[in-house]
Amino acid sequence: MTAARPFNFSAGPATLPEPVLRQVAAEMLDWGGSGMSVMEMSHRGKEFISIAEAAERDLRDLLAVPANYRILFMQGGGLGENAIVPLNLSRGGKVDVVVTGSWSRKSAAEARRYADVQVAAEGNGREIPRDWQLRSDASYVHVCTNETIDGVEFHDLPHLDNGVPLVIDCSSHLLSRPIDWSRVGLAFGGAQKNIGPAGLTLVFVRDDLLGRALDICPTAFNYETVAAAQSMYNTPPTFAIYVAGLVFQWVKQFAYAGKQGLAAIEQRNIDKAALLYAALDASGFYENRVQPSCRSRMNVPFFLKDERLNEPFLTEAKAAGLLQLKGHKTVGGMRASIYNAMPLEGVQALVTFMQDFEARHG
Amino acid sequence: MTAARPFNFSAGPATLPEPVLRQVAAEMLDWGGSGMSVMEMSHRGKEFISIAEAAERDLRDLLAVPANYRILFMQGGGLGENAIVPLNLSRGGKVDVVVTGSWSRKSAAEARRYADVQVAAEGNGREIPRDWQLRSDASYVHVCTNETIDGVEFHDLPHLDNGVPLVIDCSSHLLSRPIDWSRVGLAFGGAQKNIGPAGLTLVFVRDDLLGRALDICPTAFNYETVAAAQSMYNTPPTFAIYVAGLVFQWVKQFAYAGKQGLAAIEQRNIDKAALLYAALDASGFYENRVQPSCRSRMNVPFFLKDERLNEPFLTEAKAAGLLQLKGHKTVGGMRASIYNAMPLEGVQALVTFMQDFEARHG
Repeated sequence: MTAARPFNFSAGPATLPEPVLRQVAAEMLDWGGSGMSVMEMSHRGKEFISIAEAAERDLRDLLAVPANYRILFMQGGGLGENAIVPLNLSRGGKVDVVVTGSWSRKSAAEARRYADVQVAAEGNGREIPRDWQLRSDASYVHVCTNETIDGVEFHDLPHLDNGVPLVIDCSSHLLSRPIDWSRVGLAFGGAQKNIGPAGLTLVFVRDDLLGRALDICPTAFNYETVAAAQSMYNTPPTFAIYVAGLVFQWVKQFAYAGKQGLAAIEQRNIDKAALLYAALDASGFYENRVQPSCRSRMNVPFFLKDERLNEPFLTEAKAAGLLQLKGHKTVGGMRASIYNAMPLEGVQALVTFMQDFEARHG
Repeated sequence: MTAARPFNFSAGPATLPEPVLRQVAAEMLDWGGSGMSVMEMSHRGKEFISIAEAAERDLRDLLAVPANYRILFMQGGGLGENAIVPLNLSRGGKVDVVVTGSWSRKSAAEARRYADVQVAAEGNGREIPRDWQLRSDASYVHVCTNETIDGVEFHDLPHLDNGVPLVIDCSSHLLSRPIDWSRVGLAFGGAQKNIGPAGLTLVFVRDDLLGRALDICPTAFNYETVAAAQSMYNTPPTFAIYVAGLVFQWVKQFAYAGKQGLAAIEQRNIDKAALLYAALDASGFYENRVQPSCRSRMNVPFFLKDERLNEPFLTEAKAAGLLQLKGHKTVGGMRASIYNAMPLEGVQALVTFMQDFEARHG
């Protein structure tokens, strides 16, 4: 049955590890002898609390999250956080945003509802801009560390040496690689890329940034309130947290190239991306337009130079068991999202298909 | 295997129909021949769009939602809506709230962040207060039509004849009975009672109430934006929508006492509640303190007159396969939540257990 599942390159919601899906199915009517599905459990009961605590502990362990950062399980996704972050951190003052693509541009626009927003630098969607104009009295600096649509990734986090907190939107590469917490004040990400079902948002916030919310911040989205209630001020998305917890266990047990856990996942992500970019660069038929130093390991947009072949490419790919390769509507072309749960074999199959397609149509 | 499942009286997240859970498990690795779990589907792909459209259509059909009301699939739960409603509807002006228990009291407090809030009437948690002091220039009137903690339910919606929109928080009885839309401007509810997994919030909003949001309303929670994007401005909680859609289909097919669909569900809810309240009223050992005319069909709080027996009651109930009967911490005692998915046999088993417990300890 494993061999029969197609490879799913969706940008999110996205492919999940098959062993996780099998366990979710097996436990659907009775979790751990409780007689309940996880969907049916009170979030305040001991069964679900054990699930949530294990999920948080495993995530903290995997990402080496320091003790002075709180991990919050929230709702509203990355677009929700575009408002929730300035409601909590801006103090109505200054916010600097580095625009590297579609997502950081949206973040800047939304923060303007609550703060004096300055675009500190603006890229062209193909590279990370230099020469950031940062204000030393800003409440925080916002960057999107992986632009899902443009395929631009920060491979090193900026080091802000003036004490201004760095906020990273890491939705689409969260849990694909380590995070250098010494450079981060707050990180957020939707779960629906590397972690689990849509509807769960992960927030990591340094203790000293709690308690700064504007009065107009909804209580359910006030980080201090959510942290004080262990993410149970309101009913959390319990089932999504449970699935995420199973994914965390899967990552912990993951072995590859002599490595284990997040290091193994990262190595496989490096290898998958290298394979796909090498194939693109070796071809005159396809192209990726992002500067090599900041190409995303997760989201690989590419174009057929002859756009009339887009539809045949998608149709034939689907027939070959390669799903959801259509590029974002604002960019066009193709996009292969190769998140943690995408096996190396999936990328190999894509490359083989692309070469075959080129041979037939090139 | 059906007989082996215990009866789960959780106030939410709550018991779900077993056929729905079985279908979710069966489709976990491959929905409809797509090769994907629903969790893995792009929300913009044709597969998920067909799921979401069917869910909305079935819900509209079940509740006879008029064409001039939009159905929104949102995130943030009832507590999120306590802010989102005034952000969208208050215009920064006046809001009247009728306090009938814990939830409406929370709603009033949260709305104060955004509006001039007046408690139009305040009950004691055991009855619906009379003599509402309503302001004709209010932006809306808020009521909680089923107080989950107190067990107080509106069996008729108030008729506001002055044109002020009525907002109802119907979280814990949504889909248990019809809604008289002629009296409602906006209705909201979390899914985790009668509908599906936590993390999905349903909002029904009359067209003319769109477009009134304050500038500080987060875009992801702006009803007009969400409505214009068919609930896909941001990634919706896709898996929860899918489960909810299966529940809607289950309700449509439900037959009881010669009735079908929502009428059958309502009749069974009436019968379950009558059975339990009759047992409580016939006993000098247990009591329910809510005025009979506004007792909830969904949430039945009750007390053992000898509170020293609370722990033995819960322990023995669990051993008898009757789960999650502990009352809310602010009220104490017991609470039996008997939502749509609770069979009549579950309430019969509870009553039999209560009578047996009384015989042994009374």
